Amino acid sequence: MTAVGILSPGEMGAAIGGVLHQGKLDVVTCLEGRSELTRLRAGEAGMRDVEHVDALVQSVDVLLSVLVPAEARTIADEVAASVRRTGARPVFVECNAIAPQTVRSIEAVIRDAGSPFIDAGIIGNPPRHPNDNTRFYCSGPHTQAFESLVEYGLDIRRVGPEIGQASGLKMVYASSTKGTTALWTELFVAARALGLEQALLDEFGPEHLVSQRLRSSIPSMPKKSRRWVGEMEEIAATFAHLGLTPRILEGAADMYRFVGDTPLADQSPRDPDPPVEQILEILTEHLNREER
Amino acid sequence: MTAVGILSPGEMGAAIGGVLHQGKLDVVTCLEGRSELTRLRAGEAGMRDVEHVDALVQSVDVLLSVLVPAEARTIADEVAASVRRTGARPVFVECNAIAPQTVRSIEAVIRDAGSPFIDAGIIGNPPRHPNDNTRFYCSGPHTQAFESLVEYGLDIRRVGPEIGQASGLKMVYASSTKGTTALWTELFVAARALGLEQALLDEFGPEHLVSQRLRSSIPSMPKKSRRWVGEMEEIAATFAHLGLTPRILEGAADMYRFVGDTPLADQSPRDPDPPVEQILEILTEHLNREER
Repeated sequence: MTAVGILSPGEMGAAIGGVLHQGKLDVVTCLEGRSELTRLRAGEAGMRDVEHVDALVQSVDVLLSVLVPAEARTIADEVAASVRRTGARPVFVECNAIAPQTVRSIEAVIRDAGSPFIDAGIIGNPPRHPNDNTRFYCSGPHTQAFESLVEYGLDIRRVGPEIGQASGLKMVYASSTKGTTALWTELFVAARALGLEQALLDEFGPEHLVSQRLRSSIPSMPKKSRRWVGEMEEIAATFAHLGLTPRILEGAADMYRFVGDTPLADQSPRDPDPPVEQILEILTEHLNREER
Repeated sequence: MTAVGILSPGEMGAAIGGVLHQGKLDVVTCLEGRSELTRLRAGEAGMRDVEHVDALVQSVDVLLSVLVPAEARTIADEVAASVRRTGARPVFVECNAIAPQTVRSIEAVIRDAGSPFIDAGIIGNPPRHPNDNTRFYCSGPHTQAFESLVEYGLDIRRVGPEIGQASGLKMVYASSTKGTTALWTELFVAARALGLEQALLDEFGPEHLVSQRLRSSIPSMPKKSRRWVGEMEEIAATFAHLGLTPRILEGAADMYRFVGDTPLADQSPRDPDPPVEQILEILTEHLNREER
């Protein structure tokens, strides 16, 4: 293995690129049409920019797709077209937070074009250094090309032989974290709107897991809320495909859309987290504004 | 205070009746049209049965409405009619798990008939003895008649001067417990259906709060699931009334409807709880049966 491509160097993508670069791999990306922040991140991570996706596809052994869920299909279509144009056959690793059935439809596009395909699901925060505790689950009949990145500082774990399993694990895990945060944010906004926030906190007591979660998970959520809407919809689709209700997670998407409509979501990922109190205050005010 | 009426002696109602009876109050109910189990419970709790709701209304100072949410309005209408027929004016305490706006519409019915009205919300399991840790929150301009029951072994706490506040607290609290249990049950059924249950448990680790919740909350849930459907719908209505999404809680209602469709829900409240493993197994099988 000599070169890995990453599309695109957002927070997670750039962090992975940084780790692999520190492991002395050639980490390649294509910044065409990307924001200044993305360019800054890619530069800091030591990633090499090429002008066109064709150059990227031709220069890497493995290509990681790390994007917001809504862009996963578009980038796969672009890569498939590039694979056809160039005849290059990098291994495509689908790392996005998308439903297993969405992964399988992307697999079909990539394999039809001629490239090998691996399913992956990332759990945890972006890695800050090699051997950080971000988990990279993978699945599929042939996952060696991705698993070999363990030598460069990624914690890679094979979860099974089927395309869709790694993404499925990401979906159920994310429903337990982001789904729960959505519900608990909603109920605290409701309590505040009803003048019952203190009564609820008193009822829970300071050691209650909801009180704990309030302090630990809500402050960093607003700046990610817009991104999480699509992820909640992918989890809803995962559940619906199994015959389970999609509505809990559709409601979680509604909550992140609601948070994303406030100025709280305009914060940059590098801004400090606001205190919980201020977040609940702004969300409750936003509720009243919507009502008028 | 000499006599308290309770409609109806279900699990919670009979437990309250038992505590008040131990406190030497005359606890009255009306078992007309009620099940054998309800009669048994009422007898064990030392409650006195009268033949007609008119006799009940005429013989008590305070009347507690403790039912499943869907029956709250019907019983209030019956009591209002009885108050009109008899001229008796017992204080009506609305203890059900219903939305604040539902409580206010019931208040109108009771007050129009001429009886005083108190809002209440019960948090915790049915009390097993006087001064157990079940919390009885109340709200409204005049709550003394209910608060005086503290002398007979109930933990009564006033939460504010407005009708709807006590029920509002019950709603947001129940969304944090039963709403969360619905989501976590769903994601574990999904994980099992995808062959990922062990991978998910490994990812969480045994100390994770979801793993803990699985062991503590899911086993006793199926036998209450049918009752909880209406409660989730009342919470959804509470949130919608505030301008928040009702879908998370509508989805929780879907989950309890799904669980309620299985034989797990046929268990009596007195049956031992099945193990988590067996519950998830039966729910996943039910999923597959629905798919066919």
